[in-house]
Amino acid sequence: MSSIFGKLFCVSTWGESHGTGIGAVVDGCPAGLPLSEADIQPDLDRRRPGQSALTTPRKESDRVTILSGVFEGKTTGTPIALMIPNEDQRSHDYSDMQSWYRPSHADLTYDLKYGFRDFRGGGRSSVRESAARVAAGAIAKKILLQACGTEILSWVSSVHEVDSQVDASTVTFASIEASPVRCPDPEASLLMEQTILAAKHDQDSVGGVVTLLVRTPPVAIGEPVFDRVNSNLARAMLSIPACKGFELGSGFAGTRLRGSQHNDSIFFEGGAYHTRTNRAGGTLGGITNGEDIICRVAFKPTATISQAQETASREGENGTLSAKGRHDPCVVPRATVIAEAMAALVLVDLFLEQRARTGMFGK
Amino acid sequence: MSSIFGKLFCVSTWGESHGTGIGAVVDGCPAGLPLSEADIQPDLDRRRPGQSALTTPRKESDRVTILSGVFEGKTTGTPIALMIPNEDQRSHDYSDMQSWYRPSHADLTYDLKYGFRDFRGGGRSSVRESAARVAAGAIAKKILLQACGTEILSWVSSVHEVDSQVDASTVTFASIEASPVRCPDPEASLLMEQTILAAKHDQDSVGGVVTLLVRTPPVAIGEPVFDRVNSNLARAMLSIPACKGFELGSGFAGTRLRGSQHNDSIFFEGGAYHTRTNRAGGTLGGITNGEDIICRVAFKPTATISQAQETASREGENGTLSAKGRHDPCVVPRATVIAEAMAALVLVDLFLEQRARTGMFGK
Amino acid sequence: MSSIFGKLFCVSTWGESHGTGIGAVVDGCPAGLPLSEADIQPDLDRRRPGQSALTTPRKESDRVTILSGVFEGKTTGTPIALMIPNEDQRSHDYSDMQSWYRPSHADLTYDLKYGFRDFRGGGRSSVRESAARVAAGAIAKKILLQACGTEILSWVSSVHEVDSQVDASTVTFASIEASPVRCPDPEASLLMEQTILAAKHDQDSVGGVVTLLVRTPPVAIGEPVFDRVNSNLARAMLSIPACKGFELGSGFAGTRLRGSQHNDSIFFEGGAYHTRTNRAGGTLGGITNGEDIICRVAFKPTATISQAQETASREGENGTLSAKGRHDPCVVPRATVIAEAMAALVLVDLFLEQRARTGMFGK
Amino acid sequence: MSSIFGKLFCVSTWGESHGTGIGAVVDGCPAGLPLSEADIQPDLDRRRPGQSALTTPRKESDRVTILSGVFEGKTTGTPIALMIPNEDQRSHDYSDMQSWYRPSHADLTYDLKYGFRDFRGGGRSSVRESAARVAAGAIAKKILLQACGTEILSWVSSVHEVDSQVDASTVTFASIEASPVRCPDPEASLLMEQTILAAKHDQDSVGGVVTLLVRTPPVAIGEPVFDRVNSNLARAMLSIPACKGFELGSGFAGTRLRGSQHNDSIFFEGGAYHTRTNRAGGTLGGITNGEDIICRVAFKPTATISQAQETASREGENGTLSAKGRHDPCVVPRATVIAEAMAALVLVDLFLEQRARTGMFGK
Repeated sequence: MSSIFGKLFCVSTWGESHGTGIGAVVDGCPAGLPLSEADIQPDLDRRRPGQSALTTPRKESDRVTILSGVFEGKTTGTPIALMIPNEDQRSHDYSDMQSWYRPSHADLTYDLKYGFRDFRGGGRSSVRESAARVAAGAIAKKILLQACGTEILSWVSSVHEVDSQVDASTVTFASIEASPVRCPDPEASLLMEQTILAAKHDQDSVGGVVTLLVRTPPVAIGEPVFDRVNSNLARAMLSIPACKGFELGSGFAGTRLRGSQHNDSIFFEGGAYHTRTNRAGGTLGGITNGEDIICRVAFKPTATISQAQETASREGENGTLSAKGRHDPCVVPRATVIAEAMAALVLVDLFLEQRARTGMFGK
Repeated sequence: MSSIFGKLFCVSTWGESHGTGIGAVVDGCPAGLPLSEADIQPDLDRRRPGQSALTTPRKESDRVTILSGVFEGKTTGTPIALMIPNEDQRSHDYSDMQSWYRPSHADLTYDLKYGFRDFRGGGRSSVRESAARVAAGAIAKKILLQACGTEILSWVSSVHEVDSQVDASTVTFASIEASPVRCPDPEASLLMEQTILAAKHDQDSVGGVVTLLVRTPPVAIGEPVFDRVNSNLARAMLSIPACKGFELGSGFAGTRLRGSQHNDSIFFEGGAYHTRTNRAGGTLGGITNGEDIICRVAFKPTATISQAQETASREGENGTLSAKGRHDPCVVPRATVIAEAMAALVLVDLFLEQRARTGMFGK
Repeated sequence: MSSIFGKLFCVSTWGESHGTGIGAVVDGCPAGLPLSEADIQPDLDRRRPGQSALTTPRKESDRVTILSGVFEGKTTGTPIALMIPNEDQRSHDYSDMQSWYRPSHADLTYDLKYGFRDFRGGGRSSVRESAARVAAGAIAKKILLQACGTEILSWVSSVHEVDSQVDASTVTFASIEASPVRCPDPEASLLMEQTILAAKHDQDSVGGVVTLLVRTPPVAIGEPVFDRVNSNLARAMLSIPACKGFELGSGFAGTRLRGSQHNDSIFFEGGAYHTRTNRAGGTLGGITNGEDIICRVAFKPTATISQAQETASREGENGTLSAKGRHDPCVVPRATVIAEAMAALVLVDLFLEQRARTGMFGK
Repeated sequence: MSSIFGKLFCVSTWGESHGTGIGAVVDGCPAGLPLSEADIQPDLDRRRPGQSALTTPRKESDRVTILSGVFEGKTTGTPIALMIPNEDQRSHDYSDMQSWYRPSHADLTYDLKYGFRDFRGGGRSSVRESAARVAAGAIAKKILLQACGTEILSWVSSVHEVDSQVDASTVTFASIEASPVRCPDPEASLLMEQTILAAKHDQDSVGGVVTLLVRTPPVAIGEPVFDRVNSNLARAMLSIPACKGFELGSGFAGTRLRGSQHNDSIFFEGGAYHTRTNRAGGTLGGITNGEDIICRVAFKPTATISQAQETASREGENGTLSAKGRHDPCVVPRATVIAEAMAALVLVDLFLEQRARTGMFGK
């Protein structure tokens, strides 16, 4: 297992779907940051299941407790332990999954790797694990906001075949959260909702794409050549369950342009450099140039569906499984919050590293 | 800087475009592997510039020397230092670039970050740096081939608006290398070649997409939740200069399917589990399931073009730059080799980590 | 903060003296190890305060709970979260320490570093933090015992000016634990006890030396040149509060011998290499040679004493502090357990790394 | 192998005794530092063999070349590759050592670990490897001096049974270097010299102790609980070949004092906190308090001696070896330079980490 993320802002996560709870230890948070559970709970509320008919009916209040590292309302620079108890565990729902591997789920590969697994609700491979990341990410978000004025937003830009039109320069948190699918294009939002409910009705699932936007990111962060902002963001996003793709700025579409069309012209104004366009998506050579970071993240349709599916068992029989248990017909609306958390963890880590060496000898 | 990649097979790279050379130190290579320069040179030859009219006219023989870690033809388990001297450096070509930032290049961001940079040929941000990765990757490839029979292939699947048809189940190394653009679809190859030459003629550039295929990968490797095979591959690919996107298996297109269409049915046969389709792209829950790993990697059009472009200077003037110097009109054919190297580095690292804990207590 | 230890068996600790509790997350434990709280509690019981008149009167039951990573009595390969609640917290005892820095304690340096600290009972710098290490170390010990038959013992070899005579080749766990100061030389044990009680009576404290012995260590572990068994052991021991020195095998005394007297002759017998003497202390070139690992660890007298001491305040006044609160007149008897835990963490980490690359190509 | 040291100032070393050379890649050096070979060569000259009759007769000029990372006399923030060619290699001298294991040397353990080794001159386990550390350490020293005014000194405080009297508060670099054994007590120096020559005459060797002193260290550096200044120094020193012990401040002798005698009284004067004594040795809770760091490092007598010694062969025969080849009768005078380099690497790494998080929220 490698459940530790980050070099200077280091998050160690633990917990399974049906264990006692989910948690994280954050090592390396700067001292003096005002912090309480109230800074973390809102993102957990946005991530938690049971918010609407579009999500799994599992009921979790996801109440976080800070166990260490905060004294008299401020961080002390020591490790911050976060814990979220599990509440609604119906282990009986998952009994079949002890033997039969759900197609396109991690059941088989965890068994191949570990030879022994907690099969209840997917165990460690459940998306429930992401609650710990969201909690840690909320701290990272607060650091970025307070230290740099950085804002991280994300929304659902497509679900199945429904695309949306969203203006990244004007979109607001409120407009995103006003939509039950977190799509700030009201028309598309309605269609997406219908698409998800139709899939749910058919005991099926759908996928989609999340757009992530970082406004006013810290400038000049990113450590070439291997800890680029873009490469670490890609890793972070692909570590979210069900993620199948990542693109920054112009992405795959940009491969169909010529250099003269694709390049972002630079100009100097008001004491800083800017670009007329932002096909780069906010980084050059892996380092932020001060423009917004913008990327798109692909999520496959939920693997767990209630329809009968051909599969094999732990004992090597071939047969059919109709997955019981509760699951989201579409993970994408909840995935936005996880994507924001992971982006915050990447950025705060590289921001701290940039501080380590800046301003020593001249610059 | 973070020029170190990997945890157990750890590669530390160094070198700039116009310095004395480029190199890498590989720490953690298992002992007893037969190794000589002849194992590494072929990949360097595939990567090096000056191969055809499609690439930069810079002439580099890119001869690698092994400086340590190999004794009597075998690795000793100690660090392997690799060095590739620079030969064809025309620093005078780059004098303009001292002051004017090339649009969509790392000139500006390196200056923002470090305050001081080697401007000759892009310095450290030059794609020349990738020679060190290719050299180290060749060792990783040999380990994977000898220990697991793993084969890593890659080809150009699109250039600008030219797409290709390639059957991943039958494509061969020979068919890829027979094409000057490394596209094994002969018709598409011809069109791609014309597209690149047309862009070159117009002092312009084009981008494209590389497909990477790993046959017979080690099974059960990948360390959830943050060192998944897919997340580490994404990071590795996005660390290649000009890379803007990554998708695994069904990728972005898969977001438009329903779960019942997307899931890969499992069956047991011949003592192992297989899937009827491979939309997963070879990993589930971040762990290899034994199917081929297949992914696609997007590269933007080369940023450096000779056309006049609007930009700003180090001193804050706004003006125009016509980049001199030598550059590829399309980096994609050479990028295939770099993508293979990075994939090999990711896989061998996770393969070693899997070995560390396997077979201790029962499984 | 850097509260994470290990590369492949990775322990992340958290908690303060007077917070909600103390804990650790163990990432990288191999799957299939039988594990329950009963494997961990005995070492916590040996470490916990309040065992006798020789230790601090603070009463802590130190009951550990496994929160994740174990299913049906076996480890699953996923992170193991451990938690130990704090019970006996008397914050009022420590009110003075908010302003006045205890001499030779971390109060001042935590303030210099973080600017803000949990002053109650030393906060994070309290030896209470070591409970988390002991819990994680108990898992490491079990792995080493089950996988390699390795036994880790430690005892108090001196207290203040009282030295002991202990035969490392015959000493047993029972003989050590039979002594209230953990010194298996009964005569010395009695004198040590008297020495500690005399210091306590004088509102003073004493230091001492712990000897650590590893029988049947894994052979050929240790990663030269920087992750040697000896260097990582030294780091681990010096990370224990109050530790001031470390020596392996002949140590400082060995510097007074000639090479011909110091060298350990090698012989081959029964299919393995052995040495006639063991001045090396079990490692050569940083790699275990199969002989016992033996080292000595120095602990200064407890810094917190009730006598009036000259010191300065947070506000920069110079004055006098008579430390209230509860503390050990001698930490050495309890330090043995911590030393064992740290040794186990070092060894299991290097043992896993050795497994990663062994047996690939010939050997 | 783990030949990489440091987290933010990261040094990757390579090379064997009889290969092409020795080198290091320094990743993470801040940009803008004036640097040339002339900053590095003096320490290499102090370390190199052949300086006097007291050292091995091997002749190496140890000329270092900077291959990357420096442009127009300043560091660029990119990796700095350093290379030192091997010159005086007499491989024929070492032919016996292919079969017979030198007692108390790493020959046996390298064979146990890797199954295959470069036996010429000890290969990677030769003290020649330390040239790379000294080169990298010279850069670290310059950073500390320029950024913090930190001075690192070390001297030989004992050889075999000869002890010295040195006043750490007044000792100078010149007084140390004036002694051929690097002992600034002239009387002791003479006796040490005689002791070493006598051992050499007897085909024997002697050990000794190095004292390391860091004046004006950066304040408040060190990352509890595992990356303490003292624990990382201990690891660094124990990673030097032949090192058997480490003690900080009062060390082992301090265990024989009472707390009231051992504690260092604090006082505030001139805007800063100071201590009346320095038994702590410069760190409290693993964090520097601004006092000098002072520690002692034990080195065993050189293992390679020309006297006949009982040992076993690779093939499992028992017999006798009279080691040929060239070796130091006492490594301690040259070890001082290596100890300084390792201390500098530890301190600069923790200094950079301290900068990463300081001054963000209040302090």
